[in-house]
Order: sequence, then C-alpha cells, then structure tokens
Amino acid sequence: MTAGRQTPQPRRGRPGYDLESLLAVAVKLFNERGYDGTSMEDLSRKLGITKSAIYHHVPSKQELLRLAINRALDGLFAVADETKARHEPAVRRLEHLVRGSVRVLVDELPFVTLLLRVRGNTKVERDALARRKEFDRLVTELVAQAVRDGDLRQDIDPAVTGRLLFGTVNSLIEWYKPRGGVGAEQLADAVIATSFNGLLTHDGAGDRAAG
Amino acid sequence: MTAGRQTPQPRRGRPGYDLESLLAVAVKLFNERGYDGTSMEDLSRKLGITKSAIYHHVPSKQELLRLAINRALDGLFAVADETKARHEPAVRRLEHLVRGSVRVLVDELPFVTLLLRVRGNTKVERDALARRKEFDRLVTELVAQAVRDGDLRQDIDPAVTGRLLFGTVNSLIEWYKPRGGVGAEQLADAVIATSFNGLLTHDGAGDRAAG
Repeated sequence: MTAGRQTPQPRRGRPGYDLESLLAVAVKLFNERGYDGTSMEDLSRKLGITKSAIYHHVPSKQELLRLAINRALDGLFAVADETKARHEPAVRRLEHLVRGSVRVLVDELPFVTLLLRVRGNTKVERDALARRKEFDRLVTELVAQAVRDGDLRQDIDPAVTGRLLFGTVNSLIEWYKPRGGVGAEQLADAVIATSFNGLLTHDGAGDRAAG
Repeated sequence: MTAGRQTPQPRRGRPGYDLESLLAVAVKLFNERGYDGTSMEDLSRKLGITKSAIYHHVPSKQELLRLAINRALDGLFAVADETKARHEPAVRRLEHLVRGSVRVLVDELPFVTLLLRVRGNTKVERDALARRKEFDRLVTELVAQAVRDGDLRQDIDPAVTGRLLFGTVNSLIEWYKPRGGVGAEQLADAVIATSFNGLLTHDGAGDRAAG
C-alpha cells in the first residue's frame, strides 16, 4: 500500500476545505456562539486557515449565514411545494408537511437550528424571517381548510393550532440527537401520532383529563 | 394642576432604579443580544446610569443572570411541587403541570425565554441546565405513570412524549405576545386540548390521517 496515493483525503487538517466543509464549521460556530458573537477571525482560528483563504470561498460572514439559512429554507419549501401539489384532503397534506419538515430538520439539523434562532438584525435575517412567515401562512391555510372539511377541531384559532403544531416540530432541535437511536421516520411518526391523535388513550381517559 | 407634585414618577430616566427594574432591563438586553453579547457597559448605557451604580445593586453580570433564571425556575418548580402534592391520577397531575407551566411562561415571559436559551457556558448556566433536567425527569416520570395507568398512549417512549409535550409548551416563547389577546388560561386550554386530545375531530377523521 503506497502512502495514501489515490485514497481520498479526509476533510480534516488545514488545507482542503471546500465551501461545503467550511460552511459546516461556520454553522457549528454560529450555533455555539451566536452569529453576532462569531467573527471571521474566530472562524479562521477554528478552521486553521487564514481569513483570506476563507474569502477565497465566500465574500463575507453574512454570505455564509445566507447560504446556511437557505439550506434549511430550501428544504422546507421543497416539502411545502410537494404538499401544495398533492390532491388530497388538507388534513393529509398537513400531515405530509409535518412529516417532511421533521425529515428536513433531522437531515439538516445544524442548518435548521440556525434558521430557527435567527433574530432579524441583518438583511439576510430579515429575509429569512419573511420566508418563515410565508411558511407559517401556508400552515395556517392548511389548518383552516382541514377545519372547514370537518377533520380538525374547530374550537382553536387555526393560526394558534398551526403554531402549536410547528412549535412541537421545531422544539425537536432542542433535544434531538441524530445518533440517539430514533430515526427521522420514527420521530415523525411520534409527532404525527401525538399531535393529530393526542396523548390520551381513547378508551375513556378523555373523561379523566381535559375535556 | 401643579407640575407633577406627588404624582408617582414613571420608572424611566436616570435614577430611581431598584433591583427589580434593573433586572427587567438586563433580561431584555440578554434576550436581544445574548448573555455573552451583553456587557455591563451596554447595560449601563441602556439604563443611563454608571456601572458603579449597577454594582451598588448587584455584584456581577453573572449574578443578574442567576437572579433572572431563578425567577423562571422557581416559578416552574413551585408548580412542580404543587403537582407532586396532588392526590390525583398521574394524567391529571401532568395536565396540572402543563397548565401551571404555561401560566409561569406567560407571567414571566422574558425570564422563561432567557432560561430556555441558556447554553451552559458558565456555572450559573450549568446549574440552570441541571435544574431543567430535574424538571424533565419529573415530566417523564408522570408520563410513565400515566402510561402504566392506561391513560396515555404506550406506543411512544415516555421521555419522547414528555419532550414533545413540553416542546409545545416551550415553543410558546417564540410567538406568544402578552398583549396579543390570548390570555394564559385560554392558551393553556389550547395546549391541553390539542396535546391530550389531539388536533383531529374524533368522528372518523382518524381514518383519514395518521392511524
């Protein structure tokens, strides 16, 4: 065996960063220290390369943020577009949207985490918040349609229902560990089962707990 | 009408901060910029008082964090203690814990927000995370007992159920506005109804959506 010739180099060590691996490290730092709290200096130290080597890949810190956030948003909107195209009752399309969102969250966990922590101090962040609002509107519309269809409870404002439902989905970033044993599909099943059908067994426990 | 004599001074402007009003401003800043991203200098500028005037009330920035976080934790643990003392089935105690937690979240929104964003870089933060874990354990135990009682669904790990349930509760900090019209009790009703009974109407919609 000759010394690593033709063997792909592992993506560690100094050189050999491409935009993708650089982005992964940047997102990790942003999540740990906050976007505002991370300088290009911090990033260059963490990567073990010079700042100008970073600027070779990307013109600014804000561009790194934009790329990272769009990774998450593009994933979520791809699911939203699929959802819109389905010829099914709204309740099933909503289920599809929840399931797909859990999958994106699990597949792109650091990127979705960053997206959900965005506070809106820069143009990139304000744009991201606007796209999140657009996503929320789609959720509210689906809930409202499912309520009209008689499939979802009508005693709660559709916007509140939508926020509680995606509040549950989004809260996964706080505890989900990709290596923790629970896969995306199992997690999505749990979210769908508890959110749509409720935590209670339906053999009379409803009389005991909240009516 | 004489010039404001005997009229209570509003708590703005320079002097007249007590620990409580100082803490409120500090928590607001911590939530906006992050704890690490807020210096005592920033705080003194925001308050319009000198740093030594701040140190008259509190020995350090970390002490402000500790006071703020404990406000939230003490509220949550007061509810937890009530919950433990109730002689009721676990499912009802869990409902009580959820309802009380929503109330604490609404009453102490900035403090709970700060608590839930704590990442654990300082001793104060690590202590807070340890207390949050203790709270989570209590939730998991209640869920496990309610499952054994046959009141909660047994197809999902009690720790996951607990996390999804309090994920929903905690996600309220992302969108709930105290002046937005929905009160604490109404919000708690919505969380209990959707989490325990589910979003679906139970007249056959269950056949359409997730089984």
